[in-house]
Amino acid sequence: MNAPVLSLSRRLRVSPFEQRSLQGTKSASVYNHLILPTCYESLEADYWHLREYVQLWDVACQVQVEVSGPDALEFMEYLTPRDVSRCAVGQCIYTPLVDECGGIINDPLILRLADDRFWISLSDSDVLLWAKGLALGKGFDVRIVDPDVFPLSIQGPKADELLSRVLGDAIRELKFFRFMETSIAETPVVVARTGWSGQGGYEVYLREPQSGIRLWDTLAEAGQGLGVRAGCPNLIERIESGLLSYGNDMTLANNPIEAGLDRFFKLGKPADYLGRAALEKIAGEGVASRLVRLLIAGEPVANPRTVYPVETESGPGIGSVTSAVYSPRLDTNIAFGYVPVADSEPGTRVWVTTPDGVREACVTDTQWTVF
Amino acid sequence: MNAPVLSLSRRLRVSPFEQRSLQGTKSASVYNHLILPTCYESLEADYWHLREYVQLWDVACQVQVEVSGPDALEFMEYLTPRDVSRCAVGQCIYTPLVDECGGIINDPLILRLADDRFWISLSDSDVLLWAKGLALGKGFDVRIVDPDVFPLSIQGPKADELLSRVLGDAIRELKFFRFMETSIAETPVVVARTGWSGQGGYEVYLREPQSGIRLWDTLAEAGQGLGVRAGCPNLIERIESGLLSYGNDMTLANNPIEAGLDRFFKLGKPADYLGRAALEKIAGEGVASRLVRLLIAGEPVANPRTVYPVETESGPGIGSVTSAVYSPRLDTNIAFGYVPVADSEPGTRVWVTTPDGVREACVTDTQWTVF
Repeated sequence: MNAPVLSLSRRLRVSPFEQRSLQGTKSASVYNHLILPTCYESLEADYWHLREYVQLWDVACQVQVEVSGPDALEFMEYLTPRDVSRCAVGQCIYTPLVDECGGIINDPLILRLADDRFWISLSDSDVLLWAKGLALGKGFDVRIVDPDVFPLSIQGPKADELLSRVLGDAIRELKFFRFMETSIAETPVVVARTGWSGQGGYEVYLREPQSGIRLWDTLAEAGQGLGVRAGCPNLIERIESGLLSYGNDMTLANNPIEAGLDRFFKLGKPADYLGRAALEKIAGEGVASRLVRLLIAGEPVANPRTVYPVETESGPGIGSVTSAVYSPRLDTNIAFGYVPVADSEPGTRVWVTTPDGVREACVTDTQWTVF
Repeated sequence: MNAPVLSLSRRLRVSPFEQRSLQGTKSASVYNHLILPTCYESLEADYWHLREYVQLWDVACQVQVEVSGPDALEFMEYLTPRDVSRCAVGQCIYTPLVDECGGIINDPLILRLADDRFWISLSDSDVLLWAKGLALGKGFDVRIVDPDVFPLSIQGPKADELLSRVLGDAIRELKFFRFMETSIAETPVVVARTGWSGQGGYEVYLREPQSGIRLWDTLAEAGQGLGVRAGCPNLIERIESGLLSYGNDMTLANNPIEAGLDRFFKLGKPADYLGRAALEKIAGEGVASRLVRLLIAGEPVANPRTVYPVETESGPGIGSVTSAVYSPRLDTNIAFGYVPVADSEPGTRVWVTTPDGVREACVTDTQWTVF
């Protein structure tokens, strides 16, 4: 099967950074109707660079839904099992949005801009329509819009140095999952200490799309001598860092408990929310399978286009690998997948059917320990 | 700007026809989280072939939302200004879905499978979330699911001959925008006389995704001697045929009246629907601009990545070209765009700013008449 070239039209919304970020992009995907670069030099070269230097990522595709108005907090609470009332102004929280069955609609970051104003910074589904539909139907007094705010991510160990050259050393004090409103290159931005890698860094939310190139160039200029270059979320790095991808590692067919996202919230928050009864029932009965990390033996495996079936001692066809890649640093294939709860303990041996045959694999821990 | 290769992962849902349809695809886009091929041989070669022979199109990306249950009709009515009660079982209707402001959420085909069961066959937005949100919020007694039903389109003047070889001559009697439930290659399908071209043909809705290759191969085999090959919606053909593309020619920021979709419904249907007050207000006050067909002078223009500004006698910056292409048959550039109502009469001269300069253009009629 050949890989076609991505064709562009107005239907794919334009990122404010696209004129820079598409230079040298070897491959890309589409995410929330925008282009998401997926590789520049090579998956491995991009990975090593990200771990050592600093990259600018065009993640404009992490679009926002802005919720404001008198019922904003109540509505945000309604969308998620996480207690949004405990999110302070200036704080970000990661949390699944769920439907009435507990199925995952999206796993966004929520930024609280004011007591009654939030951004939902999205993974890949049209939450604008979900939120508008629910709010209209239930009669919440909220205003729900796409505010045309686009993130640029600065990721890598030199990110602190880069951004402090632009914003001064005060930015180094910004705590994890906190944000501040400021300006860079005379354009207003929100800077958060967040990002879809484990290498540290920031996400800069551009509020004036017409200033995207100026923002990019200012950051690229500030990164001279730090090895700055364009980059993108890296499959190797994100699996190593345990970062799940909506659409890959969980879908509407999964609930947050089996996906392990329940570590981000406590069931039983005071406020009412959609899916409470479903999640409490699932929690009470216990889930059948759980998302785990896996080490897969043998030659480098391809990232699955559809899930790879997983067999366990309990029987065949009851698990699945959702994402997989060869890690050159760990010198093994690393993966996420679902296995029966009884087979989810680190050290458990399982078998994965890949396109080129059955491979032995092993459930592992957050350290990717070889058992 | 280079064109990156489309990278694939589980997040892009797999079409049941993909193993066939991606063979020889030169370019593709992503549509409703699936791959949509956009070119096989060349835009022009694909165009001429489509007008003379018959093509199999993988349009699995036109995913369905199935609405069923006691309130199914009432809910379908609520989604759209078109009178759904007048859609018979076995009939398809084309109609915009609108939000509370009259903004276009999607422009699907609706298929009425039973009195209380519908498929909404989508253009590119997550209407599953929109419909679920609205129904949950308003308390409609409906079941809303994605039924895993994927269309394969048979388009071109030889489509009748091809399909009659498979289903017998009775299929030739199927009326425009009507469908029947039958089976092909022992797999249950819904066959509709619809399709996103003006060349005639059918859409075959596959109900068992695992049978996609068998269906494709059966149709390809039946087309031997008819010049059958893989194809896809063709930019030249669809503009010539006056087919609008959601995301390109209209978005949530447009209402159906300015987009000219009001010819598909009459305001004032008996049933209640979302956006009624907004649409009646817009209709009462009159729209500022209208979608028109345009002939653009000069060398072949590129399809806009963002809209091309249009100037008229009324003043600058008040119109936009949303889709454009060179038609080798008409030997001119053809386009869709919005212009002020006062400048929307066929024959009106306007000026379009393309990436390589300002071009003279002319509003035209449905026959692409040169004025």
